[in-house]
Amino acid sequence: MRRSYVVDTTHSPGALLKPVALEGVQLRDRFWAPRIATNNAVTLPSQYAHCEETERIANFRRAAGREAGEFVGLFFNDSDVHKWLEAVGWNDAVSDAPALQIIRDAVVNDIVSAQDTNGYLNSYFSKERIVERWTNMDLHEMYCAGHFIQAAIAIYRTSGAQTALDAACRLADHLDATFGPASAGKRETSDGHPEIELALVELYRTTRELRYLRLADFLLTVRGHQKVGTKPFDRFDAAYHQDHLPYRELHEVVGHAVRMLYLAAGATDVWLETGDAALKRAIDAQWQNMTQKRMYVSGGIGSRWNGEDFGVDYELPNETAYTETCAAIASVMWNWRLLQGTGEARYADLMEWTLYNAVMPGLSLSGNEYFYQNPLANDGKHRRSPWFGCACCPPNVARLLAQLGSYVSSVDADTLWLHTYIQGDIDATGHGLEAAVQVTTEYPWDSTVRIKIVRGGQYGLKLRIPSWASGATVTVAGVRKPATPNTYFSVRRAWQVGDEVVVQLPMTPRVIRSHPALVHTVGRVAVARGPILYCVEQADHSASVAGLHLDVSTSWQVVDGSGELGYHKALKARGTHVTTTDDQLYVDWRRDAGIPINLTLIPYHLWANRTAGAMKVWLPLA
Amino acid sequence: MRRSYVVDTTHSPGALLKPVALEGVQLRDRFWAPRIATNNAVTLPSQYAHCEETERIANFRRAAGREAGEFVGLFFNDSDVHKWLEAVGWNDAVSDAPALQIIRDAVVNDIVSAQDTNGYLNSYFSKERIVERWTNMDLHEMYCAGHFIQAAIAIYRTSGAQTALDAACRLADHLDATFGPASAGKRETSDGHPEIELALVELYRTTRELRYLRLADFLLTVRGHQKVGTKPFDRFDAAYHQDHLPYRELHEVVGHAVRMLYLAAGATDVWLETGDAALKRAIDAQWQNMTQKRMYVSGGIGSRWNGEDFGVDYELPNETAYTETCAAIASVMWNWRLLQGTGEARYADLMEWTLYNAVMPGLSLSGNEYFYQNPLANDGKHRRSPWFGCACCPPNVARLLAQLGSYVSSVDADTLWLHTYIQGDIDATGHGLEAAVQVTTEYPWDSTVRIKIVRGGQYGLKLRIPSWASGATVTVAGVRKPATPNTYFSVRRAWQVGDEVVVQLPMTPRVIRSHPALVHTVGRVAVARGPILYCVEQADHSASVAGLHLDVSTSWQVVDGSGELGYHKALKARGTHVTTTDDQLYVDWRRDAGIPINLTLIPYHLWANRTAGAMKVWLPLA
Repeated sequence: MRRSYVVDTTHSPGALLKPVALEGVQLRDRFWAPRIATNNAVTLPSQYAHCEETERIANFRRAAGREAGEFVGLFFNDSDVHKWLEAVGWNDAVSDAPALQIIRDAVVNDIVSAQDTNGYLNSYFSKERIVERWTNMDLHEMYCAGHFIQAAIAIYRTSGAQTALDAACRLADHLDATFGPASAGKRETSDGHPEIELALVELYRTTRELRYLRLADFLLTVRGHQKVGTKPFDRFDAAYHQDHLPYRELHEVVGHAVRMLYLAAGATDVWLETGDAALKRAIDAQWQNMTQKRMYVSGGIGSRWNGEDFGVDYELPNETAYTETCAAIASVMWNWRLLQGTGEARYADLMEWTLYNAVMPGLSLSGNEYFYQNPLANDGKHRRSPWFGCACCPPNVARLLAQLGSYVSSVDADTLWLHTYIQGDIDATGHGLEAAVQVTTEYPWDSTVRIKIVRGGQYGLKLRIPSWASGATVTVAGVRKPATPNTYFSVRRAWQVGDEVVVQLPMTPRVIRSHPALVHTVGRVAVARGPILYCVEQADHSASVAGLHLDVSTSWQVVDGSGELGYHKALKARGTHVTTTDDQLYVDWRRDAGIPINLTLIPYHLWANRTAGAMKVWLPLA
Repeated sequence: MRRSYVVDTTHSPGALLKPVALEGVQLRDRFWAPRIATNNAVTLPSQYAHCEETERIANFRRAAGREAGEFVGLFFNDSDVHKWLEAVGWNDAVSDAPALQIIRDAVVNDIVSAQDTNGYLNSYFSKERIVERWTNMDLHEMYCAGHFIQAAIAIYRTSGAQTALDAACRLADHLDATFGPASAGKRETSDGHPEIELALVELYRTTRELRYLRLADFLLTVRGHQKVGTKPFDRFDAAYHQDHLPYRELHEVVGHAVRMLYLAAGATDVWLETGDAALKRAIDAQWQNMTQKRMYVSGGIGSRWNGEDFGVDYELPNETAYTETCAAIASVMWNWRLLQGTGEARYADLMEWTLYNAVMPGLSLSGNEYFYQNPLANDGKHRRSPWFGCACCPPNVARLLAQLGSYVSSVDADTLWLHTYIQGDIDATGHGLEAAVQVTTEYPWDSTVRIKIVRGGQYGLKLRIPSWASGATVTVAGVRKPATPNTYFSVRRAWQVGDEVVVQLPMTPRVIRSHPALVHTVGRVAVARGPILYCVEQADHSASVAGLHLDVSTSWQVVDGSGELGYHKALKARGTHVTTTDDQLYVDWRRDAGIPINLTLIPYHLWANRTAGAMKVWLPLA
């Protein structure tokens, strides 16, 4: 069995946890397994068609002079092809995809044919635009380079094919020859759109070429000199590009949300390799700022449409939430790296929450329509699209789904860590550990998780108890013990094959309120059950969603949902509907109990999969 | 006594009501009289100093070749000087202002010296920019022209001086020669920034030159052909300029709020002269749309920062409300014209409400600092400024204050209409009516209004009963009668000098809620008393404003306020303060009664006149 690691911290000195190979995780659940199957059967083929139709792949052939015509589209369109290619790479490890393998090799061939002899690779900066290379650091040249490097690594790790990886090394060598300390005769600047940093660290992990790690560290360190975003016609300022402060002095998440978190993920990767304490202090402050001041209840981030920006503390309007799907994915990537470095449950907790409630809303159940923005309340006009002019989100969701198995567990020398619970088989053999388990559960819909030992031996299990799981218990060898939320429950034994551990994670529906400073949700509550955030949608109510209120003293009913939304748990609750008899904007207040009504809440990530209609996450109190 | 009419509907066929001369109204109250005195003593002189310091007046001398140097500032800076000059004009009728008269004449001289022999007048389009005249209809040339025409009319009506008026006619003649039907060899386009329309109608009223009215009607009618805002580099689209639909088909208030309402006011002026029913139908629909879907509880309008735009229905966020002071003034102007045409109380009601709660927040008590934007909630960082690069609001407030007396009352052939109540003397003689009254009241702070007959005779009184005045009564000759809110109470008698009518307008504090579709205020209430909207401000509370809730079952105390905020009525109520013990953004909801606390509410228009601190109008329910 090939052992493909998505983020390969095998030799990272700062990584407490080591990866479990994609091939070792067989998911057989009702939530993720169908999504991953759809990713293989629908999402990846349809995205390829979009890339071809929009001439994104032809752009490479044209740059190579192998096809007539000019570059078409946005200057960073290469990156969408690279990200799709990375998704195809990882998908190869988890799905049976012979046709995609053939396409993959052809696309790699097209891309590599466009590479300059000096290693430079970007189809937009070809022909007459060759002279414009590296003249404007906000034209995403390094961003595109980073995505190609990641694609090459995915293909190499899952198939062993060297073509793309060799091209990636030539490209990285070109970057290394061009950017670096002025004292070495190089250009001292960073890119306008971070992403290259984490790609270079992964390339270092793949090749052990230290120059790549050094370059990543340099690109991080050189920030803060306001070299990007300060020319008169720049659309955005230095803070938008995270270039206003040296990274190690940046204690907030600021500017363009995707750029900020790709940068933070890259910085965390550098820290995993170097142990740089100043870097970790900045990262910790950023995480604190994000989770305590600048994050939606969904885990979504980046509230402002203008600049796709984090905005200021507590600037989290629901209707106009930007909350780009890519930003949520970047948060997953960042939290995963922090988890590998620390083994702290809070990172796994946020990662799981973000996956279910901020990433998955971005993808239709059909697997071929996407949200770019994920508002937390909407009048029903916001609908998913099959593609975008700026198509960053679709292939980003695809690559995350292809990687998903690798985020379920980690290992250290003598312990198997389970970060989330998905029914399936985990063979975590590697890094000195021999461990395999079978997980049986309907999680995230049901609270019982049964873990059966498939490979016996003396090793530990670390079982994550989510932050919401008050009253959680773990039963080992018939002995039931209480477990503390937001920690890992540890058990170490000489396991026999067939031994069973049962984790109980109570899933009473929870009513959530926000910090008083969050003005957009004062007097309202959100509802969650287990790791799933809920919402009300018009399709389930004859009364208008705008007038729905929740009675917090309700008894909750958890019911099986199916049909158009597939298998899930819906919630039934008592509420009221406040109607208005006229169109007056402002009227004298009167105690208006409203009309009693039964509410149906569905998982927020499932909204907009039925007839278009209003939706809201935050319910005013009845 | 000179009789200066601000909007002179004396001969307007469509005007049910006729104006009362500015000189006939002597305000002697504690609210407006000090403001008007400050306008004369502080505001107008300081604005003149700003106009000089920023070289706004020098620009005219430079354009005339009478002073060395180039044009300085924004391309529409002329309009600020014109609007200030208009204010000085009206102020002349109500204040003793000999120094301002001298400055006024000197500034008129400077402006007129810059006028081209062909009548064109705009100091920006002088010298080498003469060739650019009328090449881009969004460069506010007609907007500046309109403001000069209005200034000239104010000076002419209050002083009889002809210099500016003659120049205004030459300018209007130039416009008339340039713009009009293509069949007449003229240019068929309207201006990017409406305002000229109402100025031309007023010039027609002043000169009886029918061409000016025809041009106003043409500029209105030619709209809807998307001639402005559709070039590739135009910042805003045709709807922003109200050029996307023929005006008579425009049934919403859209785009830039000030432009929209100056246009609506101009259209109403045309309707007052022509009785054009199609125009009135469109105007009615726009008013309905504004008041039922696109207006803050303050009467403020134009919610979006981007484009200073109305936004869509129910897009009324509080913290980021744009609500430009100029837009509120435009609403006052529009509603005044509708009132003159219809005699319907709802227009006077909105006009009064907007004055107190959307215009007056724009001006500091000191009379020399201004808000451009008027948010309905703020963290305390938004403070008034002494001036702006784009300085439209300061002189707009100044001219409105100078005109204020003319908005108190109107007449028709046999009736004196009182639209609002301000202590003072009203000599409404004119238009065939001989009527004069003395008003004694502490309105807007107190509910009793005593109207004493100063000139006897057989005539009617129409006394407006505000929409909020449930339980209102009017006592005539000792007989007390109930009066219906949002109507005019009519009484007709053979008055003897000394007769007294007493209007009682109950001012119980009112708790207001919003339409359920207004998502930004769900679960919150606003508080008003009489025509005054209230808010909580940090200066009155040791607990943070963000955590303040109102207990709607409170008994209300109305207390005299004084000190820094001057004489006013403050409200005391019971509320709660919800604190948080940690920084967590989202926590499990629990019934949190908060800490009982006494709330002090101050008039919203007085906020930001003390130590900087948070403020909010909408209070969550305790």
